[in-house]
Amino acid sequence: MVLEFAVSPKTKPPAKMSTPSPFLYSILILIVSFLCQASAIQLNGARYLGNFWSSSRTLSLLAKSRAPKYQYETKYFQQKLDHFSFAALPSFSQRYLINTQHWDGPSRSGPIFLYCGNEGDIEWFAANTGFVWEIAPRFGAMVIFPEHRYYGESMPYGSKEEAYKNATTLSYLTAEQALADYALLITELKRNLSAQACPVVLFGGSYGGMLAAWMRLKYPHISIGALASSAPVLQFEDLVPPETFYSIVSNGFRRESMSCFNTIKESWDVINKVGQINSGLAQLTKTFHICRELESVDSLSNWLESAYSYLAMVNYPYPTDFLMPLPGSPIKEVCRKIDSLPDGASVLQRIFEGISIYYNYTGKVDCFDLNDDPHGMSGWDWQACTEMIMPMASNRTTSMFPEFYYDPKSNEEQCLKDFHVKPRPTWITTEFGGHEFKSALKAFGSNIIFSNGLLDPWSGGSVLEDVSETIVALTTKKGAHHLDLRAATAEDPDWLLDQRSSEIKLIRGWLDEHYDEKKAISAYR
Amino acid sequence: MVLEFAVSPKTKPPAKMSTPSPFLYSILILIVSFLCQASAIQLNGARYLGNFWSSSRTLSLLAKSRAPKYQYETKYFQQKLDHFSFAALPSFSQRYLINTQHWDGPSRSGPIFLYCGNEGDIEWFAANTGFVWEIAPRFGAMVIFPEHRYYGESMPYGSKEEAYKNATTLSYLTAEQALADYALLITELKRNLSAQACPVVLFGGSYGGMLAAWMRLKYPHISIGALASSAPVLQFEDLVPPETFYSIVSNGFRRESMSCFNTIKESWDVINKVGQINSGLAQLTKTFHICRELESVDSLSNWLESAYSYLAMVNYPYPTDFLMPLPGSPIKEVCRKIDSLPDGASVLQRIFEGISIYYNYTGKVDCFDLNDDPHGMSGWDWQACTEMIMPMASNRTTSMFPEFYYDPKSNEEQCLKDFHVKPRPTWITTEFGGHEFKSALKAFGSNIIFSNGLLDPWSGGSVLEDVSETIVALTTKKGAHHLDLRAATAEDPDWLLDQRSSEIKLIRGWLDEHYDEKKAISAYR
Repeated sequence: MVLEFAVSPKTKPPAKMSTPSPFLYSILILIVSFLCQASAIQLNGARYLGNFWSSSRTLSLLAKSRAPKYQYETKYFQQKLDHFSFAALPSFSQRYLINTQHWDGPSRSGPIFLYCGNEGDIEWFAANTGFVWEIAPRFGAMVIFPEHRYYGESMPYGSKEEAYKNATTLSYLTAEQALADYALLITELKRNLSAQACPVVLFGGSYGGMLAAWMRLKYPHISIGALASSAPVLQFEDLVPPETFYSIVSNGFRRESMSCFNTIKESWDVINKVGQINSGLAQLTKTFHICRELESVDSLSNWLESAYSYLAMVNYPYPTDFLMPLPGSPIKEVCRKIDSLPDGASVLQRIFEGISIYYNYTGKVDCFDLNDDPHGMSGWDWQACTEMIMPMASNRTTSMFPEFYYDPKSNEEQCLKDFHVKPRPTWITTEFGGHEFKSALKAFGSNIIFSNGLLDPWSGGSVLEDVSETIVALTTKKGAHHLDLRAATAEDPDWLLDQRSSEIKLIRGWLDEHYDEKKAISAYR
Repeated sequence: MVLEFAVSPKTKPPAKMSTPSPFLYSILILIVSFLCQASAIQLNGARYLGNFWSSSRTLSLLAKSRAPKYQYETKYFQQKLDHFSFAALPSFSQRYLINTQHWDGPSRSGPIFLYCGNEGDIEWFAANTGFVWEIAPRFGAMVIFPEHRYYGESMPYGSKEEAYKNATTLSYLTAEQALADYALLITELKRNLSAQACPVVLFGGSYGGMLAAWMRLKYPHISIGALASSAPVLQFEDLVPPETFYSIVSNGFRRESMSCFNTIKESWDVINKVGQINSGLAQLTKTFHICRELESVDSLSNWLESAYSYLAMVNYPYPTDFLMPLPGSPIKEVCRKIDSLPDGASVLQRIFEGISIYYNYTGKVDCFDLNDDPHGMSGWDWQACTEMIMPMASNRTTSMFPEFYYDPKSNEEQCLKDFHVKPRPTWITTEFGGHEFKSALKAFGSNIIFSNGLLDPWSGGSVLEDVSETIVALTTKKGAHHLDLRAATAEDPDWLLDQRSSEIKLIRGWLDEHYDEKKAISAYR
């Protein structure tokens, strides 16, 4: 196997790309962690330290310079570190963003729209969840975005450095504690505003969507309904086959082009073989324009795997500008590139050209830094090593990725090594429901929208069929990762408008029913 | 005021009473703690150290010698100390009692009847919850009684001494942790027995009933229904007036005799006045046959208050033999005694004669030890100082008890002093629902029976009206504290038989519905 595409690194200084939204960073952490987790079996090395989710050294600067589009006040609320014990632990300040500008207030029982912050800086989520901001005024709703503990500014022990110091300081970074944070914050906030009668509607995307749905299950008295977008609440234990995620990613490529799919599928062996020869890593470093010389073949493979998975998540029908500026239907573009090279082109040349659609669509990036960690989102790595054990696997028949199986033992070993913590792979299903999740929801739940785009690889672990009359699935065939939560754009296709309109109608229905029951009046009606 | 009834202590050795059931100790802890709590404002002294719930030094011996009536194996399950964090804490062994003799087994989806252990040794509860044992065979059900953490043998840190050492070691004694214990135990047990398809029905009385109802709310996927007997789930914050409990106790006396009610109401001042004179405490000690000289008037008052409250709880229509051997309708007997003394009898003489019905019905007790703590149930005192903040008050218009109000501040001071812990008075309502509890249950819940006897002072803090078609209240006008859970006796009145029969019918309905849904067959049908 010859390394035909050994282009020397460009020498011009790093160019600034046109403001890519940092939001995808956040929504991608979930997938990244799973890529990490899945890769662990192959890698058997450090895999949680942010190698994957950042691909360009320029991005951190850009992300930091992005100003939020929406108006809010930033406030802080003192939270217990462990809600479920009385251990003498230091409390911490939870940040929350709040806007009461359009709120009908307590006298008219104005609703409260609460976004369940996920694994990242809450300002990112606020800036990239336009749907909530856009619909709030027509409901006379207050908007509140509480930050998830251990992310952004909501750091226990005074600083991220202290909070992330070791397994002891990190040990209170769990979903149940975050849910209790939200329950307490909203209860106290309502008490302070004499707004006890004001109904709360929850929103969340990805992990935030899981939290919103779980809030509905664990704290039914706190809210009247939840929109859980792209929430893979079933991606645990054996609830869905572990191959689901990578099969959906792979299908996204296969449906565009069989030869594209096959080229990617072949490429892993090619990379491995090159990596094994003398100075093979140097060759791969050159071929793929990596800034610092590769230390292992796996780091390159993971970087490629991440890109394919991201592409599947953001395979939107029109150009977007999240983590990366991308064309509409980006997978189609990647495959077009891979397939269109002349017959003599090598597999690696095709892969590099294809992946450049994702990592360098503007053509302005000089080289790629695989080890960049501009946003310090490694908290999810801890979560993925403790509670959020979502088994992932890849088999040769349905997947274009290297074959690997899910091995709880080696996962446990890795987590013990990385964090000195033992994963609890059956805890989430015990706490929130496993095979009985849907039937419990049906009997016990109400007012949840599980919205999904079927191109999104996470959709395979979500709820895709109505569970009951009030727990409904809204799926779009051509949608990807929680597009519905984003701000409206002029290019929104009809099916997206329809999805959002259904969501608004359902939310209005929850509120109407609530006001009817309480004989309350709200201005929006 | 003269102390006419200063009888000298008898000198014969302590006699053995006929096996009083220790069960009432357990079911009474709840009330005792509240008496403690309520009294704190008056006492402003140590109030949690078990002064109240034991009244005779002979009882500890008797309780220990009591053999359980039912057959079971005793097993242990390793539990995490803090389910909601990953702090490196020692695990502990949770004891559970299990009987599979009549179980239909996994192949026939035999049901599992699980009693949510409350604040005491689980063998007591097993021995005194005959209803569960008696109905299990006809359902082909397994019976399991897990013990509540920090009680009986289920001690973290290896021993009660270590577990109860200080606020740090006690800090994991919370209801949420206990619920998670039950959820984990049952999930793992079912997994080990390949019994995942076997439906679980929960049972619980008093605090155990609260846990059963909360399990249904927090872990709907774990069980298909719950019988929550005498569960004061609304006895928090301002959900019911704080005077409720003592008003119901008082009504129990008033309905028997107005003069009896008035004598008791008068007696507190009399006691206080005597206590203030020189050697007054010695006089009171003699009058009431207290073994060791009283250190304060309050300890006597609390001892009396406890008796009146216990009497209201066990005001059953036929003779019972729980904590104390008692006649049927014991309040009627107490009042008859109080009223029947000749006109010249003093208030204290009447009170002593009346209270002797409760503390010395057999006439064999020599003297009373107010400081006895044979069962070491002080765990509830911790719970009452942390989460289980149930405001109690007594006003002169509805209550025969000394007047006192609920003062969160002094309660907090007392808890800081006693346990170095700060109570969280609004936590239970945040975690499980406050004013929205019933409406959340209605929307989110199903299959709960709230059974109550209206003579029981705890009934005032429970659910007394149907919440929905499947969340029903079964009340009996003449019932007291969760009599329905006890074994059947020949003297059971019709209304008790009716109540139990309704319960069996409802449980059968839950199971039928479950089996219909699952298309499963169970032998009991």
